[in-house]
Amino acid sequence: MEMWYTEFHTDTVKWSIKVDKSIYTDKSDFQRIDIFDTDEFGRVMTLDGLMMVNEKDQFIYHDMIVHVPMATNPSVEKVLVIGGGDGGTVRELTRYKTIKRIDMVEIDEMVVEAAIKYLDYTSNKLSDERVNLYYEDGIEFVKGLKDEYDLIIVDSTDPIGPGEGLFTTEFYTNCYNALTENGILINQKESPYYEQTAREMKRSHDKLSTIFPVIMTYQYHMPTYPSGHWLFGFSSKGLNAIEDLDKDAWNALGLKTEYYNTDLHVGAFMLPNYVKELLNA
Amino acid sequence: MEMWYTEFHTDTVKWSIKVDKSIYTDKSDFQRIDIFDTDEFGRVMTLDGLMMVNEKDQFIYHDMIVHVPMATNPSVEKVLVIGGGDGGTVRELTRYKTIKRIDMVEIDEMVVEAAIKYLDYTSNKLSDERVNLYYEDGIEFVKGLKDEYDLIIVDSTDPIGPGEGLFTTEFYTNCYNALTENGILINQKESPYYEQTAREMKRSHDKLSTIFPVIMTYQYHMPTYPSGHWLFGFSSKGLNAIEDLDKDAWNALGLKTEYYNTDLHVGAFMLPNYVKELLNA
Repeated sequence: MEMWYTEFHTDTVKWSIKVDKSIYTDKSDFQRIDIFDTDEFGRVMTLDGLMMVNEKDQFIYHDMIVHVPMATNPSVEKVLVIGGGDGGTVRELTRYKTIKRIDMVEIDEMVVEAAIKYLDYTSNKLSDERVNLYYEDGIEFVKGLKDEYDLIIVDSTDPIGPGEGLFTTEFYTNCYNALTENGILINQKESPYYEQTAREMKRSHDKLSTIFPVIMTYQYHMPTYPSGHWLFGFSSKGLNAIEDLDKDAWNALGLKTEYYNTDLHVGAFMLPNYVKELLNA
Repeated sequence: MEMWYTEFHTDTVKWSIKVDKSIYTDKSDFQRIDIFDTDEFGRVMTLDGLMMVNEKDQFIYHDMIVHVPMATNPSVEKVLVIGGGDGGTVRELTRYKTIKRIDMVEIDEMVVEAAIKYLDYTSNKLSDERVNLYYEDGIEFVKGLKDEYDLIIVDSTDPIGPGEGLFTTEFYTNCYNALTENGILINQKESPYYEQTAREMKRSHDKLSTIFPVIMTYQYHMPTYPSGHWLFGFSSKGLNAIEDLDKDAWNALGLKTEYYNTDLHVGAFMLPNYVKELLNA
């Protein structure tokens, strides 16, 4: 028997990978969770049938969501991660000795439990003593917070299902208020290539633009997400991801990374014209 | 009836797009040629069952193969294109008034004929009076040439089938000799992500390194090629794609481009660590 996992990138475009073995499948209150082994990508986790994380290229996503803000402000001490149930974002954050507290708010406890049990490659630092896990709705969690975090990372799914409220003006406003003076918000900003994700990218960008004085967008090559061309948003109260990048300080840390480096950091903000035009339209 | 075009990116990874209508299919002496219409990508051409060009994102490939060398040396007058049967590379080159001669050497006349008949979006400048079409083997064409071209662009398929000889030390050496003092060689340098293309990328890089004093590699997001993360090689007798980039001169030309800009030009050379490590291994 052959088993293939298939993901529709649009109604007329699909991507399939051969499954060696199903490891786990269950339905939480929020979504369907599947974990399976593959030849090409090692162990994979999908949520509601969409690729979330895999052993082969998870390093790309997690390098880019964490090291870009950390190299811009190496003084970050208090971090809030919203979503990120596989633990990969927390894993990269724990490499910084200067970080004192990491609060991770994931709405779906079953995702975290499955990751702890089956995805050691991302979840292996969730037990770090600086990490506090909250199984709560991130939207509620940030309400009313003031001057609390130096960095907020919205490591969310697409704005469909449980991720939807993490793409709203109200949520972004609460994040702004929860940030300190040098605060940075990083958010999963979708992809410019296919129509649906491009629309969500634009909506997120427009909302952030009404709240934050500094709005930047950076790209990375993520082969297992639709189109492979994905974006993160960098929004801040004043720090500029290029002008304030402290290359020397970051390189002095001696962190070994498979994707990120401080040259690529700058290069990632150099967007194609069609992406800039979509964002600024 | 539903018809889907499927391309295997590896033995266990495949990508499929729904076909609206088959437009053309034939076998030349060199390869199978298919042209068909799709909802998402418009008109598509595949060679031996591999995506070559489509209406939606051909601009990315052609912007990056042409404008990077042209912005590095805006004085280019004589250009040789090897391969590039769809005509898209020539189309971008003809936008430069300063270019006096474009020789295009494509081994497969049937590809060019099909492109002229069915792919107007790439082939529409092949009739420019500065363009000379040669239906010959590019490997033979460059033998014995000295000091002839300011720019050689190897717009080839993968190094399997007719493209194979375009990835050899002998061919690269002949290109070196055919270039003028400020000459630049751009070559399709495969992708770092999947094992097979990564191996070809590395082989091409190693061979070029034994011949050219300046060897650089730049990346672009090409969603319809396997992994979406693709590379071009920039090799030269002395010009450096970053230090010699003439942003002001290029921007003064006023060319409207959908992907390329002179900031992205620099950013494209900032490679992820894993790619640099593969190249330098």
